[in-house]
Amino acid sequence: MNKEEHFLEKYLKPCTSVSAQFPLLVGDDCAVISLSEDLLISSDNSVIDVHFPANLDAYYVAYRALAVAASDIIAMGAYPEGYLLNITHPEPSDVWFKKFSYGIKDFNEDYETNLIGGDLTKGQLNISVTVFGKKLDKIIKRSGAKVFDDIYISNILGLGKLGYEQYEKKILDLPNQYLKPKLLSKDSIEALNPLMSSAIDISDGLLLDLSRICKQSKKGAMLNINDTVYSNAIDDLVAGDDYVLLFTCNAEHSETVRKILPNCSLLGRVTEEEKILVVDEKGKSINFEKLGWDSF
Amino acid sequence: MNKEEHFLEKYLKPCTSVSAQFPLLVGDDCAVISLSEDLLISSDNSVIDVHFPANLDAYYVAYRALAVAASDIIAMGAYPEGYLLNITHPEPSDVWFKKFSYGIKDFNEDYETNLIGGDLTKGQLNISVTVFGKKLDKIIKRSGAKVFDDIYISNILGLGKLGYEQYEKKILDLPNQYLKPKLLSKDSIEALNPLMSSAIDISDGLLLDLSRICKQSKKGAMLNINDTVYSNAIDDLVAGDDYVLLFTCNAEHSETVRKILPNCSLLGRVTEEEKILVVDEKGKSINFEKLGWDSF
Repeated sequence: MNKEEHFLEKYLKPCTSVSAQFPLLVGDDCAVISLSEDLLISSDNSVIDVHFPANLDAYYVAYRALAVAASDIIAMGAYPEGYLLNITHPEPSDVWFKKFSYGIKDFNEDYETNLIGGDLTKGQLNISVTVFGKKLDKIIKRSGAKVFDDIYISNILGLGKLGYEQYEKKILDLPNQYLKPKLLSKDSIEALNPLMSSAIDISDGLLLDLSRICKQSKKGAMLNINDTVYSNAIDDLVAGDDYVLLFTCNAEHSETVRKILPNCSLLGRVTEEEKILVVDEKGKSINFEKLGWDSF
Repeated sequence: MNKEEHFLEKYLKPCTSVSAQFPLLVGDDCAVISLSEDLLISSDNSVIDVHFPANLDAYYVAYRALAVAASDIIAMGAYPEGYLLNITHPEPSDVWFKKFSYGIKDFNEDYETNLIGGDLTKGQLNISVTVFGKKLDKIIKRSGAKVFDDIYISNILGLGKLGYEQYEKKILDLPNQYLKPKLLSKDSIEALNPLMSSAIDISDGLLLDLSRICKQSKKGAMLNINDTVYSNAIDDLVAGDDYVLLFTCNAEHSETVRKILPNCSLLGRVTEEEKILVVDEKGKSINFEKLGWDSF
């Protein structure tokens, strides 16, 4: 057995399981997905020193990479059923892989999801996750926002930034939205799916991600921001790394939405005019130099 | 528009198309795959200085990464219908992306396949491809080899190694199996699928990949090797990077197999005893220090 096979067999295979939906044990050229509904699929890379710091414990490297990738499936109103995992690592060890596999196992338990395949290659530490879900009632696209729709976030902004600052101060108490991003539960997504008109997950910053909904829906937005919607400061609106759900829905659903997501906040309304206005509690408009994060 | 969006919009979006099977235009959180058959899915990384040299033209970086990933789908008897592409790049430029996108377009044309989504992040150059295909007549696993089955390779060994040596000498004439790996055509796979009992693609070396079939099938193999099956030397049996198909099938199909794959070679037979024997033309057994390539 070569080293690649050693790590795959010893640490990753125990994280997998066979089911009607994933009928093939890992260890062939491909994974097999058996289903009749439409499939949503998304792929995301987590790169050392870009998406996570070099000294981050392998447990969190795994958990965070999986959560960040799964967040994209939730952002289309579906549930992360399973995923492929490609690990690029300069020099994997048993110690590293053991911790990493615990991160996988905890994530799988927390979100009832499955590792179904992947590979391991040499290179700069880079966790590439390809995750998929089945279409529920409908597929929630970025392009579905309607004028007068309410704009919600599933939790307050800035918890990712706060979590990172805690981590830098070596405070590792949980919950920490940076180390272990908390996503919507399966029940919440199923209940929310029929109500949403558009959705996106906040990864690059609220305003940048909202601008993507606006652009694809050919609409604008009017946001009324007060300090209950962010955890640090007003800059949380452009901070990113939040992995909360940003979505629009008809105002008639407001009571149901609050029941499904007790921590959600109503930020404002979708408008006809294709621009985003942000005003504070006193009605004063707030401007931002940049809308969010860019890799380059 | 930030830089990430610039490159995605300008170079990758034109490589995509919408169809009944892929009903959603790229630019949302996920891609959508619409199908009723079982889905085969595989993910593969191509890392700079590990899987390709740093000075390789971006056209070949793209073409080769896609071919290497698609090869895994073919190795299970299916056809690469479409793929997601995650690019990690330290500092992408328009020049690089233009060449890269030509590699994508040519691959898509050559293999009638589709780019359906992906993303771009900062980091060491690493092309992660997640490719999928629909189950044809059956799924060809590694575990299906039967005693007395013939063992075939779809083309001679060592063309990957030869191609790399040509490239190092700055000889860029095509065909070159390293720069532009040639895979089986759609017609060949469809014709071959019902005949094969097991298959794998040769990426890490014939003997290592054959040992994987033997292990999972709980069988052995007896190979009769002469110099018509390799292009350089006997070491081509452990060289890897070939991306030819290694498969087993009942001897009754030999005539049909040769019609489908005129360049194929019959290497030997599957045996009951769980070990691999290699003998030369004179019946002398040949031993190898290692069976193939290990990333680490």
